[in-house]
Amino acid sequence: MANSRSGDSMTDRIVRVLETFSDDRTMQTATEIAGRAELPLSTAHRIVGDLVAAGLLERDEDGRIRLGMRLWELALRGSSALRLRQAALPHMERVQSQIREHTQLAVLEHDEALFLERLSHPDAGANITRIAGRLPVHASSSGLILLAYADPTVRERVLAGPLRAVSRETVTDAVALRALLTSIRRRGYVAAPGSIESVSTGVAVPVRDRGEVVAALSVVLPRDADPTAALDVLRDAARNTERDLRALR
Amino acid sequence: MANSRSGDSMTDRIVRVLETFSDDRTMQTATEIAGRAELPLSTAHRIVGDLVAAGLLERDEDGRIRLGMRLWELALRGSSALRLRQAALPHMERVQSQIREHTQLAVLEHDEALFLERLSHPDAGANITRIAGRLPVHASSSGLILLAYADPTVRERVLAGPLRAVSRETVTDAVALRALLTSIRRRGYVAAPGSIESVSTGVAVPVRDRGEVVAALSVVLPRDADPTAALDVLRDAARNTERDLRALR
Repeated sequence: MANSRSGDSMTDRIVRVLETFSDDRTMQTATEIAGRAELPLSTAHRIVGDLVAAGLLERDEDGRIRLGMRLWELALRGSSALRLRQAALPHMERVQSQIREHTQLAVLEHDEALFLERLSHPDAGANITRIAGRLPVHASSSGLILLAYADPTVRERVLAGPLRAVSRETVTDAVALRALLTSIRRRGYVAAPGSIESVSTGVAVPVRDRGEVVAALSVVLPRDADPTAALDVLRDAARNTERDLRALR
Repeated sequence: MANSRSGDSMTDRIVRVLETFSDDRTMQTATEIAGRAELPLSTAHRIVGDLVAAGLLERDEDGRIRLGMRLWELALRGSSALRLRQAALPHMERVQSQIREHTQLAVLEHDEALFLERLSHPDAGANITRIAGRLPVHASSSGLILLAYADPTVRERVLAGPLRAVSRETVTDAVALRALLTSIRRRGYVAAPGSIESVSTGVAVPVRDRGEVVAALSVVLPRDADPTAALDVLRDAARNTERDLRALR
């Protein structure tokens, strides 16, 4: 029954309309949406009208369209993202109060690291991560944790490449990456200096639920910082998150 | 072009499928979804298949369906909920570290208070609010703030009733509610003892963006607590959130 992603079911068209919105494109005209979703203008107008009627999109007084609160509400209610985030947030705050840089929670989603939460200290250094943003699994410290513990089919698919270089230090060689993933599984953490940005080091640990790694908790430190202290704090936070995940079942 | 909410466009049917998910119903079979969405089984199966193919729903190994991370990602990226929450969260954390009860951020959505964020101290008392949950505007302290500063058409529509009693102390008389809203606008805050639960007092203040009230920041205190200290902390947090909202424009 399911259409392929390249198909053209009504659901696909609705998703294509929603996908035209992003952090730096929160307001669009119906004509802009039509162009970006590659839909005929009349089709885009009808879908936008339907989505506005359903509250998934909202129209301002100038006729510009934005994502509706109703969409946010539908997406969050009953989502596993919310449960994970609820369990992790208090412990991320403790990490943040001690490390005072960037603290992040990520899950594996379509072979990428999807960031559910990020807390940042006002004085902390660079960090390209955004909430609801993605990074390649082979480059970010969170992604490396998720990849190390992923289903072997996912791991082999990623290892088969292409392995894009995000920075000069990103591991893009499949043999070296496979060895790195083995060492991550043995040690239970990763410190990845420079693999996203040369000025910073990502440190990440796994978070388990029902015996499986479901998320990665990470901090982004200045390149020259010693990751040891951060690692202890992260491990405590992961353990506490796992306990609270059990309570939220 | 837009269909009415009672219409039966494909968008409506998709929304009805998504609406069957909730905090306490995160996993369903396609048959359960069909029943709850009041759709023929074949239609529900086709829509679920399309939504799974698009990543908006996910199917586990037992064939049960849950909301997909992709839906969460689409809903958050570029949503005004994310911007508000990003601006407010650090300041809510400061409130939380001082008050150590419940701290909440709400917006007006379809004449109800929709909660975007909630931080709770492990030892804090009762609080029925949930993230992505709703409460009546005339009963919750956040809702009263949002209603006091809402567009007059919204206010009159709510005042026209029905005004449901959530607790024995909820103001359900339109004349009394109108007077309460006037006094809220004059004082710039509300303390609403017992209007949601007899054991607690909600205290809320407005958060403005571009001159308009866009959200309410609130704390839920034990019934007998003095709201004065909380009010100072909340006002600081609202002011700082407003400053950060300007920076996020």
